[in-house]
Amino acid sequence: MKQILILGAGLSSSSLIRYLLNNAEKNNWFLNICDQNIKAVEKKINGSSRGKALSFNALDPEERKPWIQQADIVISMLPARFHVDIAKDCITYTTDLITPSYVSPEMEALSEQAKEAGIIIMNEIGVDPGIDHMSAMRILDQIHARGGKMHIFESFCGGLVAPESDDNPWNYKFTWNPRNVVLAGQGGAAKFIQENKYKYIPYHKLFRRTEIINIDGYGLFEGYANRDSLSYRDVYGLHDIPTIYRGTLRRKGFSRAWDVFVQLGATDDSYILEGSENMTNRDFINSFLPYNENDSVELKLRHYLKIDLDDTLWDKLVWLDIFDCKKKIGLKNATPAQILQHILEEKWTLKDHDKDMIVMYHKFVYVLNNEFHEETSEMVNIGENQTYTSMSNTVGLPVGICTKLMLNNSITRKGVLRPIYKEIYDPILDELEEHDIKFIEKKITPPRLYSNDQPWS
Amino acid sequence: MKQILILGAGLSSSSLIRYLLNNAEKNNWFLNICDQNIKAVEKKINGSSRGKALSFNALDPEERKPWIQQADIVISMLPARFHVDIAKDCITYTTDLITPSYVSPEMEALSEQAKEAGIIIMNEIGVDPGIDHMSAMRILDQIHARGGKMHIFESFCGGLVAPESDDNPWNYKFTWNPRNVVLAGQGGAAKFIQENKYKYIPYHKLFRRTEIINIDGYGLFEGYANRDSLSYRDVYGLHDIPTIYRGTLRRKGFSRAWDVFVQLGATDDSYILEGSENMTNRDFINSFLPYNENDSVELKLRHYLKIDLDDTLWDKLVWLDIFDCKKKIGLKNATPAQILQHILEEKWTLKDHDKDMIVMYHKFVYVLNNEFHEETSEMVNIGENQTYTSMSNTVGLPVGICTKLMLNNSITRKGVLRPIYKEIYDPILDELEEHDIKFIEKKITPPRLYSNDQPWS
Repeated sequence: MKQILILGAGLSSSSLIRYLLNNAEKNNWFLNICDQNIKAVEKKINGSSRGKALSFNALDPEERKPWIQQADIVISMLPARFHVDIAKDCITYTTDLITPSYVSPEMEALSEQAKEAGIIIMNEIGVDPGIDHMSAMRILDQIHARGGKMHIFESFCGGLVAPESDDNPWNYKFTWNPRNVVLAGQGGAAKFIQENKYKYIPYHKLFRRTEIINIDGYGLFEGYANRDSLSYRDVYGLHDIPTIYRGTLRRKGFSRAWDVFVQLGATDDSYILEGSENMTNRDFINSFLPYNENDSVELKLRHYLKIDLDDTLWDKLVWLDIFDCKKKIGLKNATPAQILQHILEEKWTLKDHDKDMIVMYHKFVYVLNNEFHEETSEMVNIGENQTYTSMSNTVGLPVGICTKLMLNNSITRKGVLRPIYKEIYDPILDELEEHDIKFIEKKITPPRLYSNDQPWS
Repeated sequence: MKQILILGAGLSSSSLIRYLLNNAEKNNWFLNICDQNIKAVEKKINGSSRGKALSFNALDPEERKPWIQQADIVISMLPARFHVDIAKDCITYTTDLITPSYVSPEMEALSEQAKEAGIIIMNEIGVDPGIDHMSAMRILDQIHARGGKMHIFESFCGGLVAPESDDNPWNYKFTWNPRNVVLAGQGGAAKFIQENKYKYIPYHKLFRRTEIINIDGYGLFEGYANRDSLSYRDVYGLHDIPTIYRGTLRRKGFSRAWDVFVQLGATDDSYILEGSENMTNRDFINSFLPYNENDSVELKLRHYLKIDLDDTLWDKLVWLDIFDCKKKIGLKNATPAQILQHILEEKWTLKDHDKDMIVMYHKFVYVLNNEFHEETSEMVNIGENQTYTSMSNTVGLPVGICTKLMLNNSITRKGVLRPIYKEIYDPILDELEEHDIKFIEKKITPPRLYSNDQPWS
């Protein structure tokens, strides 16, 4: 019986555990699942004889050591900062490891040791990063195999609310960590390249530089630039590509309204607002506006940010109750970002039967036979419910399928890996289709270019 | 003979050394002046028998020890981060110390030890901080002595170019550290209080929230908020004041144009621009603008920041040659802020005969006998030349005069001090007037209020 050790089993691991248990009998697997919340794990195991809930301290090297030693594979769903320590143990005990998280420089540095130990440390095998890599590389490899040369690569992904549950003027609800949504885009300028020109967008302009994207059957979305699009040139082997851009998707109109909070300074997490506990929502907004004895907060805000009387973004703001003079913040020593998150959490919360949605979109323009060609690849996935959300499915299923491949020794490469190789992405993408995670690929004519310069002439 | 030890004698110490040498004979002083650039110090001593240039390493505790031991007073003009170590030595050898820099928390923590050693560690005794404290405290103490209660305190200071040398559309030249000017306002939101309402301005809005100030005979200036106005409540003993605001002065119209660079992200010092060495000025600006095959950088910028065709700020931008497609940046691995500084240094440089100017302005509104009253206090000082600049005079003279007071034992307080006490500020302000650093005080009727609420009713 093959032993699978799962470290950390939070919200996003429901689909992973279900997949592995569903396949355990056939493949003769046993799951040891360790989490501080043993009750929640037992609920996920749901009486199966193929899984056991454990509550040892996964952060303690001595406690986890025997479990890693006896495991055939370790899946770390712990916060990303703990993966490197787990990886070192896996090298010591020659046990394969899977994490859905980004490869940190410290993790990358372990690759030679992992190869020497003959193990795989698979990373970035969730949805973003994960399914984005796989679905993009499948098409990039096809284009390169046909002799095409990549000219534009753009890629967008977003976690949103499903259309059937989309009932507020923002067309948005929190389907993932609210704090990350409030702080999104902070920490440095967004960097990308367009037609060989490097482009930089500071945080305070990020939400006014969106790209509009139409997804058939789902309507219009908009994408704002991710912080670092440039590093994907190395990951995808697109060293000389003139245009590469990665972004985050929201529904059209979201970013312009969100920019109000950015402009006010209401997303700042670096200082504490005096007297935050006793502030009302209205006081909070007013603290970013000039003092005036007579003018209303509303008019001051409209004037400050030049918001026309008939601008529909105003409805979004009013709907959030940000002008409410009775609702107390009630948070002691809170930063603007914490207060804003608190206000939003009251309004952007999923109702019991609401479903989430993951949308992904890639655009590929390439040169073949002295002509431009364009293809797109798009995926929309809707969650089953609030346990098997789209987020949980699109993270958990690729991890689960990859676990199967690794236990079957189907992956021949060793070392610190991403799922950018055909032997990895092909079987995973194929099996994901059975779970309704399916990309629709299209040819676009004529191709949509930024410049008509012909690189072949 | 009393021994004065000066550690560090850069640009700003010319006036200090001249003042001390001019008064050395009468007071029987001898100056030991240590700086890495011994030639520059010798030039400042200019053959006087009352001074000696030294070049020991002031950062080496062993090298400076004998000099601190034998000194009657130490003046540290070193970068602020070194003051605490010097202060500890001064406590050990019971030698008084003067620095023009802000009191750091580490320095504040030495106050009890300094008192036990019976020494004075005088700080914040340049222009800003320094003359601002003294000129404000003189009036605040007078208002409080008459039984007045402070209602509004606003204070502005700026280092600018003198009117006779003001010959460019920005009405600005670098008269001090250019890097500090480019980075001004970064590092956190500006915080102040108006009519008991805390107000916060994020960096990207700072230069659009200016206050206009008229100085008789000098015309209009504008002030943008300093990062921390609130801490001055403690320093000045204004704990319950409804309005306190401190700002930095520029000529009217500067901030709106400077905001163009802020909005673009061109003042960012946190990342390196790809290929900065071979960029032109025009490429630099274009790197912050959306890609377009046909539109000009000029039109893209006007559209992005909504700059009207007849807006005079455009002349300021053009005058800086930021659209020049031939001027190369020539800086390797440079940040946006470094590149912008490089472009500005070519244009905002003082010519040989140009003079600088320091402007300071305080506004005091107080309640006395159930009525509001307003007074203002303003100072304009123009430099003599590019050695004895206004910056050098307004920093060096208060330090020099305070040295005299301390050597004469005129200051009875001990410990870590600021010049906020009458026994310190009165003689210094009086003597500064002899050097043409003079405040003009006015009563303003009717007082200019933010709110007509009467706190006494």
